[in-house]
Amino acid sequence: MAAAGNGGGGGGTKEEFRRIYDVLKEKLLRDPAFEFTESSRQWIDRMVDYNVPGGKCNRGHSVVDSYKLLKGAKVPSEEEMFLASTLGWCIEWLQAYFLVLDDIMDESHTRRGQPCWFRVPQVGFIAINDGIILRNHISRILRLHFKGKPYFADLLDLFNEVEFKTASGQLLDLITTHEGEKDLTKYNIGVHRRIVQYKTAYYSFYLPVACALLLSGEDLINYGAVENILVEMGTYFQVQDDYLDCYGDPEFIGKIGTDIEDYKCSWLVVQALECTDESQKRVLFENYGKNDPACVAKVKNLYKELNLEATFHDYENKSYNKMIADIEAQPSLAVQNVLKSFLHKIYKRQK
Amino acid sequence: MAAAGNGGGGGGTKEEFRRIYDVLKEKLLRDPAFEFTESSRQWIDRMVDYNVPGGKCNRGHSVVDSYKLLKGAKVPSEEEMFLASTLGWCIEWLQAYFLVLDDIMDESHTRRGQPCWFRVPQVGFIAINDGIILRNHISRILRLHFKGKPYFADLLDLFNEVEFKTASGQLLDLITTHEGEKDLTKYNIGVHRRIVQYKTAYYSFYLPVACALLLSGEDLINYGAVENILVEMGTYFQVQDDYLDCYGDPEFIGKIGTDIEDYKCSWLVVQALECTDESQKRVLFENYGKNDPACVAKVKNLYKELNLEATFHDYENKSYNKMIADIEAQPSLAVQNVLKSFLHKIYKRQK
Repeated sequence: MAAAGNGGGGGGTKEEFRRIYDVLKEKLLRDPAFEFTESSRQWIDRMVDYNVPGGKCNRGHSVVDSYKLLKGAKVPSEEEMFLASTLGWCIEWLQAYFLVLDDIMDESHTRRGQPCWFRVPQVGFIAINDGIILRNHISRILRLHFKGKPYFADLLDLFNEVEFKTASGQLLDLITTHEGEKDLTKYNIGVHRRIVQYKTAYYSFYLPVACALLLSGEDLINYGAVENILVEMGTYFQVQDDYLDCYGDPEFIGKIGTDIEDYKCSWLVVQALECTDESQKRVLFENYGKNDPACVAKVKNLYKELNLEATFHDYENKSYNKMIADIEAQPSLAVQNVLKSFLHKIYKRQK
Repeated sequence: MAAAGNGGGGGGTKEEFRRIYDVLKEKLLRDPAFEFTESSRQWIDRMVDYNVPGGKCNRGHSVVDSYKLLKGAKVPSEEEMFLASTLGWCIEWLQAYFLVLDDIMDESHTRRGQPCWFRVPQVGFIAINDGIILRNHISRILRLHFKGKPYFADLLDLFNEVEFKTASGQLLDLITTHEGEKDLTKYNIGVHRRIVQYKTAYYSFYLPVACALLLSGEDLINYGAVENILVEMGTYFQVQDDYLDCYGDPEFIGKIGTDIEDYKCSWLVVQALECTDESQKRVLFENYGKNDPACVAKVKNLYKELNLEATFHDYENKSYNKMIADIEAQPSLAVQNVLKSFLHKIYKRQK
């Protein structure tokens, strides 16, 4: 079959990526490790359709994009494109698993413009087991398509390790921000950094590139610096998110931020806590996390007094310069391209 | 260190088994894959202590016992006993993971004589993430102690496959018995067999022996017949459970059965559905799953009319004879010993 589509070489359009989802799902619905009944097969079919493919698939696509960049001038074969897309879908499955369970823990109402899965009639707490099944699908997919590859064990290890880091980051987030009464003394730069790094950066930024590297025959042991750069990039991305929640244009980002009302462990509040005097600290303690516009205004006023916008732009510049320097210290130009492509997608983003 | 204790050879007392739990937990609390804060480390410590070691540890001990029987006259080394105990604890961790999540899904109140973990103050839905972490602990333990062993990949595969079967069995149970209104037409022998086999038998009966076989250097590909025997044994065990719920001595089994009130997909009700005429079927449909002693009495009466006690004893004999014949067809005497030891622990049990 001829290579086609975006950027030339081995396919890789969004339509082709999506087509592979159907192939993977069909296999799972015929997995011989379980004797499906008609209704359990239908349940899984519907549950996977509801939760896995409905997002933007940025993480999934970025495995394919990274892999193509790593191949450089060489055109990936159809088989290679299939495998890269499959790993991309494994990350989408991982994301779906986290979101299904997070929505229950956060008692959320909607996700991607539709009710959260556990809020769908007849689902309820069955969603917990569905989350488990989504995680298990990843093991099934990897086994089916990668068993026998020299990097199979490393792939399992990678997904296990990233899942562990994510669940640990989620725990830290839960016990810091949800447990017990509101207590700002628990919030500080170190806790914020750890939550962001473990809960989001590893699976959203490091994992796609690590998958592409393994598929290219690389040993991840040689890519510690790349891991650090991507974790830094994921952290930078989340800091932007926290900044835009308060300072972004609601028209542009498509929502009105509520981090202050929601008592979020935002980068802004940990920065504020870092440089406030006693009376300012009192303002924060008294007004943060209250669903009252007057309280929100007081917090935003304090942010202005402390000039947190400048603090952010300073962080943004320093972080960018550090990442660029670290990227350019990478011996492989192809790897540099992968990292720069990621960075330039998010640098100075407004939404 | 000298071998000591029960049955002679390489230790393996319950105290030694328990001591290894502490070793494994300490390692997890110092896992370099996450930067613990003081409070997240304390949380995990308490959560693991609350959920993992409080049961009878039958599954865990049976890895050690099976391994010793497989070694025959050879005394296991201290290292081998440590590894067998570690795999035993991995099954206990797996069980804890299932129970923490099942209790949320079933909205249970107590477990092992204490409140379910999610009912402990300050825990709530954080228990969902704790369940995930318990599952992740297994991967961490296996990686730490078995990476580099020739059977490492098979071990990961075994735990993954058994977890998938269990979650699939749990799904079938949930959508058959919990979803929507009560509808006995969903219950039949085939569904009951599948629920029991996948939800319970694989992880409770097959998994411990499969762990012991891998540790002994065996390839599971050669043990398909052993798998079938153990799944049959696990099924027989659950059928006994269903039988004792109605016919056991409450003094002896330590609880009063409520399967009829709870609308359980019990072996008794699926047998009854199999051999009722239309008017008897109506009695079942009208009275099964009602929390009313008069309704329960009518169901029990029908069971008597249908002579389900005899049906059970007939099943018990046939199943036992089949298992014994299959066990004795096994080429290895050591394997026969393992299987017979399991079977004789449960045959004709009264509690």
